[in-house]
Amino acid sequence: MSDVYIIGAGETKFGELWERSLRELAVEAGLRAVENAGIFSKDIQVLYGSNSLAGIISGQENTGDLLADFAGIAEYHIPAIRIEASTASGGAAVRQAYLGIKSGEFDVAMVGGVEKMTDIFGSELLDLTSSVLDREWEAFFGATPAALAAISARKYMKDFNVEKEALSMVSVNDHANASMNPNAHYRNRITLEQAMKATDIAEPLNLMDCSAMGDGAAALILASESYVKKNKLNGVKILASADAQDYLAVHSRKHLYSLDSAKVAARKALEKAKMKNSDISFVELHDSYSIYGLLELEELGFAERGKAKNLVYEEISLKGSIPVNPSGGLKAKGNPLGATGVGQIVEAYTQLKGKAGERQVKEAKVAMTHSMGGTGSNSVVHILGGE
Amino acid sequence: MSDVYIIGAGETKFGELWERSLRELAVEAGLRAVENAGIFSKDIQVLYGSNSLAGIISGQENTGDLLADFAGIAEYHIPAIRIEASTASGGAAVRQAYLGIKSGEFDVAMVGGVEKMTDIFGSELLDLTSSVLDREWEAFFGATPAALAAISARKYMKDFNVEKEALSMVSVNDHANASMNPNAHYRNRITLEQAMKATDIAEPLNLMDCSAMGDGAAALILASESYVKKNKLNGVKILASADAQDYLAVHSRKHLYSLDSAKVAARKALEKAKMKNSDISFVELHDSYSIYGLLELEELGFAERGKAKNLVYEEISLKGSIPVNPSGGLKAKGNPLGATGVGQIVEAYTQLKGKAGERQVKEAKVAMTHSMGGTGSNSVVHILGGE
Repeated sequence: MSDVYIIGAGETKFGELWERSLRELAVEAGLRAVENAGIFSKDIQVLYGSNSLAGIISGQENTGDLLADFAGIAEYHIPAIRIEASTASGGAAVRQAYLGIKSGEFDVAMVGGVEKMTDIFGSELLDLTSSVLDREWEAFFGATPAALAAISARKYMKDFNVEKEALSMVSVNDHANASMNPNAHYRNRITLEQAMKATDIAEPLNLMDCSAMGDGAAALILASESYVKKNKLNGVKILASADAQDYLAVHSRKHLYSLDSAKVAARKALEKAKMKNSDISFVELHDSYSIYGLLELEELGFAERGKAKNLVYEEISLKGSIPVNPSGGLKAKGNPLGATGVGQIVEAYTQLKGKAGERQVKEAKVAMTHSMGGTGSNSVVHILGGE
Repeated sequence: MSDVYIIGAGETKFGELWERSLRELAVEAGLRAVENAGIFSKDIQVLYGSNSLAGIISGQENTGDLLADFAGIAEYHIPAIRIEASTASGGAAVRQAYLGIKSGEFDVAMVGGVEKMTDIFGSELLDLTSSVLDREWEAFFGATPAALAAISARKYMKDFNVEKEALSMVSVNDHANASMNPNAHYRNRITLEQAMKATDIAEPLNLMDCSAMGDGAAALILASESYVKKNKLNGVKILASADAQDYLAVHSRKHLYSLDSAKVAARKALEKAKMKNSDISFVELHDSYSIYGLLELEELGFAERGKAKNLVYEEISLKGSIPVNPSGGLKAKGNPLGATGVGQIVEAYTQLKGKAGERQVKEAKVAMTHSMGGTGSNSVVHILGGE
């Protein structure tokens, strides 16, 4: 089976991009990735599109074909397909492209993730994002992703004696890193006090515990080992790719705060890469709510159960032992659903190439990325590194 | 690379199943496929879900996880993912499962396609199915899939001197075959006169030229060669799998009636299988509108341009030289979007196993299936046969 490399990456600014359309954003990110890879559009042999909500928001399904068409590659009649795994669509699309190349059927794949969320507003958006939950057994009774994350947080905080401050520090760290990322949705730093005292959303979660849903696109070019060698390209190797699933509804799971999908996916990925957590230089994780930042540090293997609180002051910072979300994470770089997981890998690639500027992680050798669906119903983990 | 086999298939009845839910339908089809394969649910290593419109119809995205959960396999934490390629989602999901097995990462995959369309009504449904078009450049201006198919039909009929009767015969053939399929949506035969004189929908297409959108589910179990041999199973081999894409909007394409995605996908599949059209025993094609039945016979290579009309009286019947849609096709077996393409392959498997009862194609050795997205923006072609 061929090894798979990332040879190019690009993204748009994340944020409230009122004047730009879904297709415009996707094309911008795609062209940046193609340029960054040093290839031509006609070299692309397959397109994997990642999108979560365009069907619901604007009545546009079939986004794989839409992106291929507006990227100007429809004339080559290459296959294009959309991958949807709710908020893990981005990671899942990268994984499907990886499998496609590994199968030997393709040498060069584009992955394009995009979301355009500012086409709708307020309570309507709240209902639509509940489409990632179990519509009949969770959302129907009024549960929203934020409310379910809050339930997980309450039980976790009680069982392991975790203070609200630990959650807030996850967001403080994200904002600190995003302040150095020109593509981030929010580039302002926040203080611990600001994070603690923001408007409540679903107690104990406040506004500063919730990711910034918005617009944006991210794209990657993946290639087979033979293509990389033949064209003398410098790629970043995908050392492992794994995914796992859990019960859709939070109430069906082992505990109210367990994220078994993250645990299983990370364990599988580390096994495949023949690595330990201590081999990971930094991690881009899916902190759609700050509580998940803590839970994932534990489920991904960086801390024991209940102990993530000990990492959030120093260790997760850019200069700590396990830098978390150098990009700014979902809280501050932003969370345009279908683009988010692809954007995590854009950041990993940029860091591993040593091109992350002010927010560069020192001696970044190996990255782990974790893209999670909804409240944890699925997870996709990638480990990247080396030339 | 491992060869890939289909080792089990199952489906629900297609139709207006008012009292049954999306998840119930999916689970029924899945269990039938598992039983048919002679495996246990815990043997499944990955689930590929195919669904087109649940997000828009009932606010339920994340259907990959939903199906895995309600199929009772969430406890194994296997990956689950949804594939969406509009009305070709079914064929596309089978192809992604095929690539996953070929990559060496899985030995056993389930593909489950499902759609629940009777949760909405009339004009609302009409708008929602336009989500497979270009929402901003086609649907926004009032175009619907039926209207666009009618435009293709008019131009084609004029350019190649094709009479309405040829279109109607495609539907007559579908109904004749469906009359022998217990799972078909419509089991009544129709006469040519009935087909010609039905209520107009978008002239020259009438009600009998339009597929039966409804509810239903279909499932397949795919396995690697080594798994099949180790467990002494009798599978049907996937001889080739290919997909291709075209411009999303009809007005962007070469001609108003060209289906380049079908042409390219079929050519690629035949090349991979090292076969000619004359090697194909029967074809399940995507006649969401009767005009596509004619166009696809040509694009898939069974007739020259403008000549499909010569095949529709005898040749496409069960006893003809190239039987078309022994299942009853999209017109009469039915078209529950996400299930349709999976169901085509359920039929191909059933026929190749010689288990199709009254509608059995004699000496069925090699099948071609063609799953098409929207008005032709993408196509997935599979060639199946042998043990």
